[in-house]
Amino acid sequence: MGCKAKQAIASSTGLNLVREPSYHRYRKMAPGPWSSDKKNDTCCESESPVYVHNPHLDGMKEDVLYHFNLGTSTHDLPTMFGDVKFVCVGGSPWRMKSFIEYMAKDLGLENAKSEYPNICAGTDRYAMYKIGPVLSVSHGMGIPSISIMLHELIKLLHHANCTDVTIVRIGTSGGLGLEPGTVVVTKQPVDANFMPQFEQVILGKTVVRSTDLDEGLAEELLQCSKDLGQFNTVIGNTMCTSDFYEGQARLDGAFCSYTENDKQEYLTKAYKSGVCNIEMESSVFAAMCKLSGLKAAVVCVTLLDRQKGDQMNSTPDVFHSYHQRPQILVGHLIKKRLQASGFYKS
Amino acid sequence: MGCKAKQAIASSTGLNLVREPSYHRYRKMAPGPWSSDKKNDTCCESESPVYVHNPHLDGMKEDVLYHFNLGTSTHDLPTMFGDVKFVCVGGSPWRMKSFIEYMAKDLGLENAKSEYPNICAGTDRYAMYKIGPVLSVSHGMGIPSISIMLHELIKLLHHANCTDVTIVRIGTSGGLGLEPGTVVVTKQPVDANFMPQFEQVILGKTVVRSTDLDEGLAEELLQCSKDLGQFNTVIGNTMCTSDFYEGQARLDGAFCSYTENDKQEYLTKAYKSGVCNIEMESSVFAAMCKLSGLKAAVVCVTLLDRQKGDQMNSTPDVFHSYHQRPQILVGHLIKKRLQASGFYKS
Repeated sequence: MGCKAKQAIASSTGLNLVREPSYHRYRKMAPGPWSSDKKNDTCCESESPVYVHNPHLDGMKEDVLYHFNLGTSTHDLPTMFGDVKFVCVGGSPWRMKSFIEYMAKDLGLENAKSEYPNICAGTDRYAMYKIGPVLSVSHGMGIPSISIMLHELIKLLHHANCTDVTIVRIGTSGGLGLEPGTVVVTKQPVDANFMPQFEQVILGKTVVRSTDLDEGLAEELLQCSKDLGQFNTVIGNTMCTSDFYEGQARLDGAFCSYTENDKQEYLTKAYKSGVCNIEMESSVFAAMCKLSGLKAAVVCVTLLDRQKGDQMNSTPDVFHSYHQRPQILVGHLIKKRLQASGFYKS
Repeated sequence: MGCKAKQAIASSTGLNLVREPSYHRYRKMAPGPWSSDKKNDTCCESESPVYVHNPHLDGMKEDVLYHFNLGTSTHDLPTMFGDVKFVCVGGSPWRMKSFIEYMAKDLGLENAKSEYPNICAGTDRYAMYKIGPVLSVSHGMGIPSISIMLHELIKLLHHANCTDVTIVRIGTSGGLGLEPGTVVVTKQPVDANFMPQFEQVILGKTVVRSTDLDEGLAEELLQCSKDLGQFNTVIGNTMCTSDFYEGQARLDGAFCSYTENDKQEYLTKAYKSGVCNIEMESSVFAAMCKLSGLKAAVVCVTLLDRQKGDQMNSTPDVFHSYHQRPQILVGHLIKKRLQASGFYKS
């Protein structure tokens, strides 16, 4: 069953994962005024906070968010970030700057010089930009790099007392059975064996975490694509690997011990299991956002069809056009939500 | 047995790793004129090339090194890089620029404006600088990020017909039982269970790779530190993790399900197994360099003693001074080698 056939399937996979006993505290909270999700409106009327699950944090005099060059004793985080309702993250610092410029223009929040300072200018590990309720943060490439950023982002949002935050990863990916340029909204991230789980090593032991994303948000994004009518968007599973070359069955790395047939067999298995695209961050992103109560989605454009090739050799103009698509889609979602809340009038 | 006690131990661990049958082609080559290692001078007199192990590359019309924004049909790689003898890699783009400025000054190769262009200016994934035979490349944070860079770097050096290349990763780390600011030259990278191996997933299956580094190069770097007499340097094992917070037993992440005692027990086990410091790239760096025949070393300064804390809250001046140390050490090695070869006269 390929990804096109899976567009209509919204139920979870039903697999029983070994979950951590200490993280069973997820409460269903009523959506805040920024959320369009009415389905979970069953518990209480309070806003949904950003959770940390770490009793040690309470005893710390200060919290240095080292890789952001920010901290609780050096920065007034509630004032700086307390109004954040949308966080968009992506690998490339340039693209995250471009996203905030795009949002500023789209929401009519441009400042006189159209310049948006990098809030993390004191470090080159990550870049961060903000306009109104929208925060844009780069995360580099691969699970460890996005994981460091997410630990510090979740603590930042928690320290800033943010509520009802929606977070979307925008990025690029290799597609399976899709026309290059197609946008994939991830139903569920899976590992290199197509299992919907993320393995976190803690004190040398492996703990399995769920990679569930917010189904309602994925559907909302698909509707946004229909509203726009500019490019094809599908919902499907996303394979998240720890390597770009051998880990994704590419034939063009420095090392390759398998044949073209081996590659095709592996990618066909992935496709039949429901994998639409392959990237390198979605599984830990889903796992960490779920733990912290953030409503999360992953939106990646496919730069090529991996069953037809490995090399990324389209023209810069074509790549540029593809790169815009996740940003356009998420921008539309944010604008719709803000219009519905009365923050923004078109 | 802690890392101080292990300084004099140079033998390998003797563990039997499952190695890949197709990668048994490592030839012992005579060192070239840039190498000071005379111990392997037993085979032939030819120079040692940079190996790729990928039969598919031969059939490709061009090779696009996508994350460098370079390629075989768009760039004359032999002319641009054919003289490279030393490659220094590190996480931070700023630090790799600073390294090339330092080397230019130290070797008297400064240009009129003391400006060194980023060779990968067309992308923000990695930054690359070159002065004479010295190449400096950033790799971001974590195994996947450095792995992408190394695949493309190894192919670049191969396409450029480079020979006798020495490569050193410079970086920062958390120390165990060491005064902050101590420099650790890695004897062998180990995983989160203190095993000297790197697990690479290929087509969904795990392949175990050796993390052997060049012993002679490590000893040479230790001697360089003695020559300099500026800071303490030790040789010891380096634990390489896929996560900075839970993966390194930190108590200050967004999530933490273990106690201070659990943390101390784990770090003590690591220390007793010979681990001197903890970082996030050394294992795949060692594995990939070994496969490609690059003589490799890892030189990381310790920013804090992890048995005494987790937060990185020294002053910027102290951190700046620590950050300089790996660069000073590797710079001294390069200068010594170039002096011995006649390239550079002091």
